[in-house]
Amino acid sequence: MNPSPNRPRIAVDAMGGDFGPHVVVPGAVQMAKAKQYDLLLVGDEARVAAELNKHDTRGLEVRVVHASQVAEMHDKPSEALRRKKDSSIQVCCNLVRAGEADGLISAGNTGVVLACSLFTLGRLEGVDRPALATILPTERTPCVLTDAGANVDCKPLNLLQFAIMADVMARTLLRYPDPKVALLSNGEEEGKGNQLVKESFELLKQSSLSFVGNVEGRDLFSGDVDVVICDGFVGNVVIKQAEGLASSLGRLLKGELRRGFFAKIGTTLALSALKRFSRLMDYAEYGGAPLLGLKGIVIVSHGASNIKAIGNAVDMAGVLIRRDATRLMREGLAANKDFAHFVKRPAQAD
Amino acid sequence: MNPSPNRPRIAVDAMGGDFGPHVVVPGAVQMAKAKQYDLLLVGDEARVAAELNKHDTRGLEVRVVHASQVAEMHDKPSEALRRKKDSSIQVCCNLVRAGEADGLISAGNTGVVLACSLFTLGRLEGVDRPALATILPTERTPCVLTDAGANVDCKPLNLLQFAIMADVMARTLLRYPDPKVALLSNGEEEGKGNQLVKESFELLKQSSLSFVGNVEGRDLFSGDVDVVICDGFVGNVVIKQAEGLASSLGRLLKGELRRGFFAKIGTTLALSALKRFSRLMDYAEYGGAPLLGLKGIVIVSHGASNIKAIGNAVDMAGVLIRRDATRLMREGLAANKDFAHFVKRPAQAD
Repeated sequence: MNPSPNRPRIAVDAMGGDFGPHVVVPGAVQMAKAKQYDLLLVGDEARVAAELNKHDTRGLEVRVVHASQVAEMHDKPSEALRRKKDSSIQVCCNLVRAGEADGLISAGNTGVVLACSLFTLGRLEGVDRPALATILPTERTPCVLTDAGANVDCKPLNLLQFAIMADVMARTLLRYPDPKVALLSNGEEEGKGNQLVKESFELLKQSSLSFVGNVEGRDLFSGDVDVVICDGFVGNVVIKQAEGLASSLGRLLKGELRRGFFAKIGTTLALSALKRFSRLMDYAEYGGAPLLGLKGIVIVSHGASNIKAIGNAVDMAGVLIRRDATRLMREGLAANKDFAHFVKRPAQAD
Repeated sequence: MNPSPNRPRIAVDAMGGDFGPHVVVPGAVQMAKAKQYDLLLVGDEARVAAELNKHDTRGLEVRVVHASQVAEMHDKPSEALRRKKDSSIQVCCNLVRAGEADGLISAGNTGVVLACSLFTLGRLEGVDRPALATILPTERTPCVLTDAGANVDCKPLNLLQFAIMADVMARTLLRYPDPKVALLSNGEEEGKGNQLVKESFELLKQSSLSFVGNVEGRDLFSGDVDVVICDGFVGNVVIKQAEGLASSLGRLLKGELRRGFFAKIGTTLALSALKRFSRLMDYAEYGGAPLLGLKGIVIVSHGASNIKAIGNAVDMAGVLIRRDATRLMREGLAANKDFAHFVKRPAQAD
């Protein structure tokens, strides 16, 4: 396999997720064939090869890379880093670092993926903390929410960096030519927000981004903005609340409408409409969350990923590689570099 | 009017809200007659009396108290405090402070209500910052969420105090004998959360409350807990997000289902189910948000309050007065006083 922007080489953690090679291998193979990606399937060689043999791989560049260990869901990131130096996640990171792969996807332990990729690949210049991006459905076009949960306590400079990187996600993944970037706050007016949001507002206003100010919780699903920035604590609460509310409404509709003939028709129609919306909320639709700010493309997938979700995560990596997202992030960070350095000291002193 | 626990005396800001006396007076009068509350209607005497004359007030103890000024929606709290010393909001606070009323409700400028009541009534002993409580609908029984937006930056001790007071709301307003109190976090396990949540967890664990640990955003609507505690920034985002998501889903359902004959029946049924849920989300259902931690009952109503919402806000005040919520809050704060004092220094030193 030789590097070529048109043939992204994607390392896939074949042992990750609740179902391992049985689901990861077919998901990755199907998408790689459809989109012309090269694959490095990482994990227990015998098991991965056995699964791979079940599939038609004609026209596909695929290599199995052995990893003798697996990071389990209960493993602590710090311990996995020390004791599982040959885990499938770690080997994926090694392949990207060595330049043998352009990006990786894993449905394994998220904390371990974060720790291994941060430790092995390192951060892009101008990034203090990597962040997770998530694609949020809205009434109109989807938007990018960052940080979706990697950093629970943040400084204004972190939020500026998240915004620069999330802007690139909106340009590359969603193909928005000039994404409208907003801060999530408790009021639309400038001056609203907690200390973090107020200080971040000042930074974003002076940045190179198309910053449109604050949005409130009620604006998240209207589709008026393309990128929403918040700390990872708020981002996690917001995403899980949306999932929870959609499920609760589904259950309430089922309960309320399961009554008569017309009600049954109503149930079916209403639930299918609700499902179309919830599906957008579903990890499977986009397959994963890009981890932003590392020297290489890293996609974190849900542990419960099915074949479709794995395929979409592989595609997300492929799209970000083909559209040169890492270079665009470097450029965005560089464009705001002097400014970021200028504010760095006061922001850290608080 | 003489003080009696069975005849709560409620000061009502008759000028508050988008519609003034025209809506506030009938809302207050209807509820006061139904529940045997005494009313002090505060505002422009001529306008309030004219409106009052339209209603049958037999059997009702009601007095009009003149106030020569009105705090407008755009008034800054600090300026209203200085320049509008005879605003209807300020006069309501004066009546409670003087012992002529047991509580007040206002649908006026929330910031001005907060400032006037804090300045005039003062805080209960053991309360550093008053907080707003809101009643959140769930799949099962409703829960109390505090802080709903009064304090965007909090310390762990604030969250402990919010929890003690919100626990009393669950006992009095919702009649739960032993409310299950939880912290809103990014994971259920102890140790999850941002710095604020982790430190607050330690305090709540040692408090007199039935603290059940962390809940995530997805648990907010399941009804597993009775009280959810968070800072006012997160609380505001959460409440507005729930409102926004319910509206977005309603619009999507309308769009998706408005297609054929059966679809029309489906639309109607699905929307009525969604409406039943959204209605619970609606301020009108509970009429207002109690402002916790002051020497007196203060209910903040939505500016767009209709007659029903005003009535329900008056009833909320009446119920809290009859069930002696302020005394229960004092007792709860006292029971956790030594503990709160013990932790006060390290918590403020961070």
